[in-house]
Amino acid sequence: MHRLKPLPAYLQQRYHGWKATTYAENSSWYERLATEGQRPRAMVISCCDSRVHVTSIFGADQGEFFIHRNIANLVPPFEPDSGNHGTSAAIEYAVTVLKVSHLIVLGHSKCGGVQGCIDMCKGDAPDLQRKDSFVGRWMDILAPKFPEVEAISDPDEQAQAFEKLSVLASMENLVTFPFVAERVESGQLSLHGLWLNMGAGELEFYSPPADEFQPV
Amino acid sequence: MHRLKPLPAYLQQRYHGWKATTYAENSSWYERLATEGQRPRAMVISCCDSRVHVTSIFGADQGEFFIHRNIANLVPPFEPDSGNHGTSAAIEYAVTVLKVSHLIVLGHSKCGGVQGCIDMCKGDAPDLQRKDSFVGRWMDILAPKFPEVEAISDPDEQAQAFEKLSVLASMENLVTFPFVAERVESGQLSLHGLWLNMGAGELEFYSPPADEFQPV
Amino acid sequence: MHRLKPLPAYLQQRYHGWKATTYAENSSWYERLATEGQRPRAMVISCCDSRVHVTSIFGADQGEFFIHRNIANLVPPFEPDSGNHGTSAAIEYAVTVLKVSHLIVLGHSKCGGVQGCIDMCKGDAPDLQRKDSFVGRWMDILAPKFPEVEAISDPDEQAQAFEKLSVLASMENLVTFPFVAERVESGQLSLHGLWLNMGAGELEFYSPPADEFQPV
Amino acid sequence: MHRLKPLPAYLQQRYHGWKATTYAENSSWYERLATEGQRPRAMVISCCDSRVHVTSIFGADQGEFFIHRNIANLVPPFEPDSGNHGTSAAIEYAVTVLKVSHLIVLGHSKCGGVQGCIDMCKGDAPDLQRKDSFVGRWMDILAPKFPEVEAISDPDEQAQAFEKLSVLASMENLVTFPFVAERVESGQLSLHGLWLNMGAGELEFYSPPADEFQPV
Repeated sequence: MHRLKPLPAYLQQRYHGWKATTYAENSSWYERLATEGQRPRAMVISCCDSRVHVTSIFGADQGEFFIHRNIANLVPPFEPDSGNHGTSAAIEYAVTVLKVSHLIVLGHSKCGGVQGCIDMCKGDAPDLQRKDSFVGRWMDILAPKFPEVEAISDPDEQAQAFEKLSVLASMENLVTFPFVAERVESGQLSLHGLWLNMGAGELEFYSPPADEFQPV
Repeated sequence: MHRLKPLPAYLQQRYHGWKATTYAENSSWYERLATEGQRPRAMVISCCDSRVHVTSIFGADQGEFFIHRNIANLVPPFEPDSGNHGTSAAIEYAVTVLKVSHLIVLGHSKCGGVQGCIDMCKGDAPDLQRKDSFVGRWMDILAPKFPEVEAISDPDEQAQAFEKLSVLASMENLVTFPFVAERVESGQLSLHGLWLNMGAGELEFYSPPADEFQPV
Repeated sequence: MHRLKPLPAYLQQRYHGWKATTYAENSSWYERLATEGQRPRAMVISCCDSRVHVTSIFGADQGEFFIHRNIANLVPPFEPDSGNHGTSAAIEYAVTVLKVSHLIVLGHSKCGGVQGCIDMCKGDAPDLQRKDSFVGRWMDILAPKFPEVEAISDPDEQAQAFEKLSVLASMENLVTFPFVAERVESGQLSLHGLWLNMGAGELEFYSPPADEFQPV
Repeated sequence: MHRLKPLPAYLQQRYHGWKATTYAENSSWYERLATEGQRPRAMVISCCDSRVHVTSIFGADQGEFFIHRNIANLVPPFEPDSGNHGTSAAIEYAVTVLKVSHLIVLGHSKCGGVQGCIDMCKGDAPDLQRKDSFVGRWMDILAPKFPEVEAISDPDEQAQAFEKLSVLASMENLVTFPFVAERVESGQLSLHGLWLNMGAGELEFYSPPADEFQPV
């Protein structure tokens, strides 16, 4: 721990700039949020990818979205085995404590995690198949769905189809959580599956009647 | 899955606004990011809390930060047991695939997860002690540190001290990952511990020589 | 060449200070930039003037901006006559090789080059009118625009108006380069005209609808 | 010109942050610099490359360096042919108007312009050999020196040797300008050749007695 270096100067400067402008202009609201607690309307589960800024896309300011970000926006199935389940903990907190009204899963194009899963399922990524590969074991959540896209020959089409399946797999797993299923059933919570084509700026949503993703 | 409702209209409208403005003005850069891939300089591990927008604080635009968000910005210890470790997977991807240069853990004031951990450790939160409480079992990562702040009588001071300990605990666990330790040792990766007082807009960083958090 | 003197000691000392601090703290990122190559999002054309630091104004760190600086931030018209055109070469490299998304021309107040051009156009600077005056011949790029500000009687107002015209003249000349025009047309490149009032710290941008410079 | 887009929002925000902090803290000095004019001690000729920040390396603040940046930090020979010579104009202004005391040429490793020149000289870059290639014609300034490094077989060593030659070529051309030669002769101006190994953070200077670059 003695090797810690200072925060890069450009980040320090930008922080001071934020403090003197954005913070100064909104301090009253930030103080209320701190004093009265957050009351987000929605939880968003999206990817860690640096190119996906859900707050930007939806013009969301401080206090609006409770956001969990992990590799490939995956939700594991309900497993109350007393392990350290970070994603499940975030969902539990959002749904049972914060009582959010919407739960949005946001997938995206060119997802490195999903591509890795494809490579792994094809046998082209021995590193990801190792027991001690965290990325590989995390993508095991999605891997069982691979047969559904295996026949797609075009690599880009296959990747997009699998990215969309990652959203649907997460939504399926979400309803295995009793506290999610119960609130969806009672109408207190709605689930939404989205997929963003980053380069084109196109957002699509999963339409259950059509059983496909359609432009928002 | 037949219960899915459409995306709320206000979010649809904001998306279309983003598409016509922010996207349109930056489409060239977003297309390049999609085509050439991301190359973020830093990974940030922060809380899901809706009041913490790290990209805003640091004026970071698309492509700059790889961001993992979970309850209380916790990093579990290195456990290559083939389980679905979302946080470990995100760290592995950022460090070994993206080769980020900085790894920043950002804690914050009024953290609900940390407060829950305090309540649990004091025996005041039986729900969190249940085997099937995902939040409780996630906060088990931090719970062993509670004795270090147990004697602080003022609740606010105790919470802030424990929030800062959550940052330090994560940093300690980070170096138990061989690929993190190796790159820190070789100088290819630097670790940074930050804590944000949300209401006051004050950012503090952990200073190893002083062994305390100090204003940036 | 035998008259070369050592680098002044104060610069040597500052370099060693930078090496031990800024470099040491960011060595991993600098090594990656060296190994993987630059990928700047924008090119900036600004003046050589020692008072204009575009990286400071925009909190830009190593790797963000490709920067060409010349007297009065001028862009000559497209002239593929096989001469040594330094500005045209910089633009060609930024646009066709680096494929930057934004091209920013940054003018500023109290510009000595622009003032010289005014004096020259008024017949008050015989030195600048000489065939062998490099500054004079360089300012010939802007001189044809002088009639547009000739009637302004207040010298400061005239200078500011001409400084802003230098930005617009450069932008007009930029689109005479086929590779610029093509990428602007296709939406891959956007042009931005800025003018900085250095003393007041006020930044203005050219608004085409209003056809004037307005505060950012 | 009707296609102009607004300045990206992240740059607008960072500017406002700069205005409220760096500018606010230094407004008195910036106002003096605006009112009394600049008085830089040195001129620096460096590359446009986004990875080379000479102000950072030398801790230089507003007002210290008059900076010209072009592809590969080249100075063409003295050619008073009434053409638009941007580099020559910048040098003339710095030396005869601002009367700088030092003229520093700063080369660097991994220079794309120098590498392009190598490829062109080897016949591997037909695009750069075209009459209408601005980069190619600009690199013609350096090309005649290629035979001096042609025999170096290791590509990295060859590139570094040529990058250093680009600095020396510029210095040789500098003294072909009568106003430079005269002031160097009289001791009013000193020339300095530097080369930066960006990844390693190592700065070297040209030592005439040793006729080689040595660590600063």
